[in-house]
Amino acid sequence: MADQRGVLLLNGPNLNMLGKREPGIYGSTTLADVEAACAEKAAALGLELEARQSNHEGELVTWVQEARESRAAIIINPGAYSHTSIALLDALQIFPGVILEVHISNIHKRESFRHHSYVSRAATGVIIGLGAQGYLLALDAVAAHLNKA
Amino acid sequence: MADQRGVLLLNGPNLNMLGKREPGIYGSTTLADVEAACAEKAAALGLELEARQSNHEGELVTWVQEARESRAAIIINPGAYSHTSIALLDALQIFPGVILEVHISNIHKRESFRHHSYVSRAATGVIIGLGAQGYLLALDAVAAHLNKA
Amino acid sequence: MADQRGVLLLNGPNLNMLGKREPGIYGSTTLADVEAACAEKAAALGLELEARQSNHEGELVTWVQEARESRAAIIINPGAYSHTSIALLDALQIFPGVILEVHISNIHKRESFRHHSYVSRAATGVIIGLGAQGYLLALDAVAAHLNKA
Amino acid sequence: MADQRGVLLLNGPNLNMLGKREPGIYGSTTLADVEAACAEKAAALGLELEARQSNHEGELVTWVQEARESRAAIIINPGAYSHTSIALLDALQIFPGVILEVHISNIHKRESFRHHSYVSRAATGVIIGLGAQGYLLALDAVAAHLNKA
Amino acid sequence: MADQRGVLLLNGPNLNMLGKREPGIYGSTTLADVEAACAEKAAALGLELEARQSNHEGELVTWVQEARESRAAIIINPGAYSHTSIALLDALQIFPGVILEVHISNIHKRESFRHHSYVSRAATGVIIGLGAQGYLLALDAVAAHLNKA
Amino acid sequence: MADQRGVLLLNGPNLNMLGKREPGIYGSTTLADVEAACAEKAAALGLELEARQSNHEGELVTWVQEARESRAAIIINPGAYSHTSIALLDALQIFPGVILEVHISNIHKRESFRHHSYVSRAATGVIIGLGAQGYLLALDAVAAHLNKA
Amino acid sequence: MADQRGVLLLNGPNLNMLGKREPGIYGSTTLADVEAACAEKAAALGLELEARQSNHEGELVTWVQEARESRAAIIINPGAYSHTSIALLDALQIFPGVILEVHISNIHKRESFRHHSYVSRAATGVIIGLGAQGYLLALDAVAAHLNKA
Amino acid sequence: MADQRGVLLLNGPNLNMLGKREPGIYGSTTLADVEAACAEKAAALGLELEARQSNHEGELVTWVQEARESRAAIIINPGAYSHTSIALLDALQIFPGVILEVHISNIHKRESFRHHSYVSRAATGVIIGLGAQGYLLALDAVAAHLNKA
Amino acid sequence: MADQRGVLLLNGPNLNMLGKREPGIYGSTTLADVEAACAEKAAALGLELEARQSNHEGELVTWVQEARESRAAIIINPGAYSHTSIALLDALQIFPGVILEVHISNIHKRESFRHHSYVSRAATGVIIGLGAQGYLLALDAVAAHLNKA
Amino acid sequence: MADQRGVLLLNGPNLNMLGKREPGIYGSTTLADVEAACAEKAAALGLELEARQSNHEGELVTWVQEARESRAAIIINPGAYSHTSIALLDALQIFPGVILEVHISNIHKRESFRHHSYVSRAATGVIIGLGAQGYLLALDAVAAHLNKA
Amino acid sequence: MADQRGVLLLNGPNLNMLGKREPGIYGSTTLADVEAACAEKAAALGLELEARQSNHEGELVTWVQEARESRAAIIINPGAYSHTSIALLDALQIFPGVILEVHISNIHKRESFRHHSYVSRAATGVIIGLGAQGYLLALDAVAAHLNKA
Amino acid sequence: MADQRGVLLLNGPNLNMLGKREPGIYGSTTLADVEAACAEKAAALGLELEARQSNHEGELVTWVQEARESRAAIIINPGAYSHTSIALLDALQIFPGVILEVHISNIHKRESFRHHSYVSRAATGVIIGLGAQGYLLALDAVAAHLNKA
Repeated sequence: MADQRGVLLLNGPNLNMLGKREPGIYGSTTLADVEAACAEKAAALGLELEARQSNHEGELVTWVQEARESRAAIIINPGAYSHTSIALLDALQIFPGVILEVHISNIHKRESFRHHSYVSRAATGVIIGLGAQGYLLALDAVAAHLNKA
Repeated sequence: MADQRGVLLLNGPNLNMLGKREPGIYGSTTLADVEAACAEKAAALGLELEARQSNHEGELVTWVQEARESRAAIIINPGAYSHTSIALLDALQIFPGVILEVHISNIHKRESFRHHSYVSRAATGVIIGLGAQGYLLALDAVAAHLNKA
Repeated sequence: MADQRGVLLLNGPNLNMLGKREPGIYGSTTLADVEAACAEKAAALGLELEARQSNHEGELVTWVQEARESRAAIIINPGAYSHTSIALLDALQIFPGVILEVHISNIHKRESFRHHSYVSRAATGVIIGLGAQGYLLALDAVAAHLNKA
Repeated sequence: MADQRGVLLLNGPNLNMLGKREPGIYGSTTLADVEAACAEKAAALGLELEARQSNHEGELVTWVQEARESRAAIIINPGAYSHTSIALLDALQIFPGVILEVHISNIHKRESFRHHSYVSRAATGVIIGLGAQGYLLALDAVAAHLNKA
Repeated sequence: MADQRGVLLLNGPNLNMLGKREPGIYGSTTLADVEAACAEKAAALGLELEARQSNHEGELVTWVQEARESRAAIIINPGAYSHTSIALLDALQIFPGVILEVHISNIHKRESFRHHSYVSRAATGVIIGLGAQGYLLALDAVAAHLNKA
Repeated sequence: MADQRGVLLLNGPNLNMLGKREPGIYGSTTLADVEAACAEKAAALGLELEARQSNHEGELVTWVQEARESRAAIIINPGAYSHTSIALLDALQIFPGVILEVHISNIHKRESFRHHSYVSRAATGVIIGLGAQGYLLALDAVAAHLNKA
Repeated sequence: MADQRGVLLLNGPNLNMLGKREPGIYGSTTLADVEAACAEKAAALGLELEARQSNHEGELVTWVQEARESRAAIIINPGAYSHTSIALLDALQIFPGVILEVHISNIHKRESFRHHSYVSRAATGVIIGLGAQGYLLALDAVAAHLNKA
Repeated sequence: MADQRGVLLLNGPNLNMLGKREPGIYGSTTLADVEAACAEKAAALGLELEARQSNHEGELVTWVQEARESRAAIIINPGAYSHTSIALLDALQIFPGVILEVHISNIHKRESFRHHSYVSRAATGVIIGLGAQGYLLALDAVAAHLNKA
Repeated sequence: MADQRGVLLLNGPNLNMLGKREPGIYGSTTLADVEAACAEKAAALGLELEARQSNHEGELVTWVQEARESRAAIIINPGAYSHTSIALLDALQIFPGVILEVHISNIHKRESFRHHSYVSRAATGVIIGLGAQGYLLALDAVAAHLNKA
Repeated sequence: MADQRGVLLLNGPNLNMLGKREPGIYGSTTLADVEAACAEKAAALGLELEARQSNHEGELVTWVQEARESRAAIIINPGAYSHTSIALLDALQIFPGVILEVHISNIHKRESFRHHSYVSRAATGVIIGLGAQGYLLALDAVAAHLNKA
Repeated sequence: MADQRGVLLLNGPNLNMLGKREPGIYGSTTLADVEAACAEKAAALGLELEARQSNHEGELVTWVQEARESRAAIIINPGAYSHTSIALLDALQIFPGVILEVHISNIHKRESFRHHSYVSRAATGVIIGLGAQGYLLALDAVAAHLNKA
Repeated sequence: MADQRGVLLLNGPNLNMLGKREPGIYGSTTLADVEAACAEKAAALGLELEARQSNHEGELVTWVQEARESRAAIIINPGAYSHTSIALLDALQIFPGVILEVHISNIHKRESFRHHSYVSRAATGVIIGLGAQGYLLALDAVAAHLNKA
């Protein structure tokens, strides 16, 4: 049975480059910084966080499948796979818990092929454009949902 | 000059019906409840909140214009005008402060004509599908932005 | 609780010009004439009719909302807002009673942007192209529905 | 020359199944019931009604053509041919009398390929979503048009 | 084996109404007149013509199939089935002889749904907008093709 | 009540030409051969098969309607009507038994207008591209479904 | 009857912000400046100008309707309603006088949803991209039309 | 005034290559051959033919304009400009005489961008897929029209 | 270096036919009249005007290129090339001066393929539907721009 | 050289979850059950089956490539990659043997983005909507093809 | 017969402006410089180069036609005609030799109407975005192809 | 810091099959041959080449990311991922060096879904249709860019 306080934090392709490119624009916050901040906030909320990143669609699918057994919630920034991966959507639609989709930048201000997300069809909620803070707000949302349940 | 802690909370058409219809689905939280919860949270964050609702596109446009003088941030749930109002987009694009767009339900699980929002082009961030909590997270996001500035 | 015989007759933008333009084409029947004929027919059917017209999308939305408390049925000719107003659709979808949509001319013989009506998604029935008589037939339909209930 | 009070009632494919399927949803009214009710109402309005049904597009086309000689009006529920038959549209466009198109269910609440009707381009008026009553209102509309002429 | 001089002249839905409607526009030439003129011209060209008309898609399909055995060419005005009948296209694509498609009016000056013809994909040649003369020119084309073969 | 072992085998337009055209490509198997092979296999599976073919959309619709009373399953190769007939879809959607759609060739390797089938929306299963064997596999599928029920 | 020299100058949503935002780009000319310049030029041309601005679609519709009685021409910058308001188009199509549509910036250099204007279908002429001078040229055009009539 | 028997034969881009390429497919008939055959046939019909070819859109436009003064009919094979030239359409729409559009091959069997012809909107008639004979049939059609006039 | 008062007036395909066709509709003003009126007005504004017309896309491109050296502004009515010529757009985008696009008729009331203009992407301003006066207003606009610079 | 009786059974993303989710809907048959049933049936047909599943597009591509050397047929349920993977299509198009595409549910009753399959362009045959039995019928089809060859 | 070492270098509209505009962006290399560099490289490769430029679609078509007689290869930068000229495509499709299409800038980073090239359908190869070097690489490609033949 | 002469040669899905399939069409050059030829040419140009191939989108993404640290240029043939991988586009957009996209065959002569490449948005240049030589020309282009820098 799933751990009722367990949260899986997934980051998709190219998010491992966070903070390593164009710091003038994106700031110098790295993915490790984000994951550390999330772990700290999760602990404060009484949640157990595990963080993973992959550039592989198939690996993200597998991790989502495995979370069925062990997690109460998933926070996912699917990166480019938001727009192209029906496989990820299918994996998420099987997941019975809370799903939060996060995008660091406002995808609606970018190219039109980034405006549509397959993942949003499976998500409980979506948080867009709030930078690294978006992950922290997603944790708040997860906590609120789990406390309600 | 704009009040550096002033936040305008705008709700668009039909959001005055919140909690008055299908409580089995939407719960019994009314717009007044939402506004009260936001006021309380805003105070805790050191923000001054004013809440307004209108079914009129033109009135929402006017209120956004006026906020240029007096507010540092706008939190807006544009309801159906999200999908149809370029006038509201134009008004928001003139606003120099932080803009948070909130949708109570996950619009990406509904009819396809609700998947696109003109307002998102002007928003700093977008929070979708988290119910009334979405407004509170938007206040968190506003506070974070104002503290950074 | 709603008056079980109360009917709200709503006319949208530019329908106040009925009979004032191109009488050679549209005839000289004015909106006042239409409303009077409807009132007379409603009385004969044991219905209580109130008639309103507005050029404002927001005002129509508000009137539909208010009708939840006080009317058993709405007859609406949304004019141009048929094609553009999701806000009006949302208001009508909350309304629990009978909804009849009426168009005086046959919109399917006009420009293609008039062929689609958001309002039809919420309507119980739609009557198109029958001129002022369309409103009277809508009253017949309302009466039949209310008598059945 | 056409009989000035003659009305042809045409029902298209699958309408012969009315009342034979899913009576829980569609009720138990059969096509024979509908035709009988229409005959009765027609008589009361001083109209002569002949009712026919066919699953064949070509037969419907032929009947519409023949009506040119003998009928003042056609009431037609084209069923699925509404959406696919330009041949039926062409036959109706030659018909010089009044044409009423009737749909029992609200086609705008169904799949998108049912939202468009070729027949509406030739119809005087269209009545949608009012069940069997739609045919009776169509007779009222026919009577009103013939009395005017 | 097919008669090397046999030509089947097929006319589709509503072409039996030729000359019976709006003679001010279409002239008073009837389908019988057209068929007689074609028979006369065919004889002059040493061709044997059989003429048929049907409002039924299925009947036209069957006639085209039968022509495989007995005709060297088909001249067809498919009327509205040009735009909607893949079944007719399939039947014609099996036919090994010459196929001429004729349209009396210029379909490219009419509604956009008349601009596309499935039948043209199977036709040897297409003649549009030349009125009844189009059929006679089609016979010339058939004769030229048969003489070449 | 329907015969619990009765199966109707329907073939649509131009399938009567099977084996009569281009035997180099399609082989020399005729529709009679297919029907005989199906009858033999049906008998082996304890099913009673009746086979019909028509070029008429309306006749196919009627046969599907009649099967409601007398058959437990329909195997249908709708030919070109797959792509154009909403009437056939409607008839099939009323049929309460098992529906297998068969296409002899792989329609996804042909023109794009053959990629979509209305009939597939009503079918239990679809078998494409397996030649005459597709019908036999459809019988297997029918038997399996009936045995389960 | 309409004043043969009366001109109504209408400005739509957000045009009241002219000169108040981004003066580096748009210059510091306010709407009041524009209206004053127009009044002066109108007087020089022997025209009587009344200027109004509204953020409300319904109010613009009403003003256009009223102008039927009292004005010979309308100059309108519909702002964002150009792209979304069929109601405004309908009101203008009833207006019997001269209609000039003005856009300050070149809408064809902006987002694609700004390239289409419903209002242009009703306008006599359209002037785009010439800044505040566009209004003055529109007055010249009105004067020329009225002098011709 | 135009010569009542004068016909201009225009061939567009690449038609000067006729018979010079892939004679195995297109045959060895050159444009000169076609023009000679047309001249002979024109003489037999009492028509005066002038033949021109150009690869320049502008030159074809100019020649069509000049023909207003001197020709009763134009036969034009616009080649690739059929699909792209609105300028040629405009020139032809000013021409008051008979216009025949000819295509040597069946453009509906080729790439989809060749299925649409702007020129067809201005043509009296269109002849497609009949090779060089298409020009001769076009002359027959011209003669018939001029004799009728 | 460019003449600071030099203006090139370009007219595209078929504009040389102005006043020569359908004078009942377009009036009898010829292109020569338009050019003369423009020359007169230009002189009054202290501008030097040269007027040219061509039916050739390539020639218009070349003239626009040459104007870089010698003109401060271009007034262009591109006729049909508005809708099809990216080459003309490219030439204009290199031109550093003021560009006014003029259309005599209101292209938004005509066929949909005339609603889009490539040239508008390069134009400073666009004037539509004001007849020959449009050119004179364009000269006013040019003068205003040059005086500002 | 390929084993003339070797069959590779491939299942794509999320098919490893079969029987583990929503057993009320999908039944409790797991992928292991399906593979065992296929192995048994393959043996009965004299085929050698190897079964693999992957959530990785690249792994499926590699396995298809390797099968060129060692297998006579591939049975593949590509799951979500049906709709998005051109890489898988390319790998299959190189495979010289028989290819059967299987879908457990009827994809044509689901969201429209599931109606199109790239894989179908490379498949010999496609079997849809027949549950686990679809795989067994695919084995029948493979056996029939291999026996024919 | 064609010169087996002859290469025609064609540049389309506006390429004569190379190096004359925005040297800060495009550099100061002129078309003459490019042609000289190509001539030098061609000589080194044992090729005979002739270079031409035209703003006229028709002239480019003619030159391509003439090259059939005298050249073994064409290197063409069609400029804007890439996107609009089917006539140029047709001329190139007749050319039996090697065709290299060159674009100086990366057209896929520009407006979407520049992403499609008709010419690419006829080209042997395409080189995009490599500036003037693209022409030199095209010569390498031509030499390699001619040496192979 | 990146090696100023280091070049990464990436080949995507199915390119490992080069020369192993249909040698009659594609020739017998294998990927190893291509890589060897590239290594040789790179050495001659003073470049250091490393060559890799993967069928995994995620692996290609990772390799592109790693190249940021160590390579001055990437030459990539993304195979089918050109058309579907936004993840690869994102990885390439972060890469600061020169990017050459190569396609062996002319993708514009193939199915329409191969005409669009996401990768082209990030590429410096694109070389299409020149077979294995395309890679060598890409090396020339890389050398030229690096020498310029």
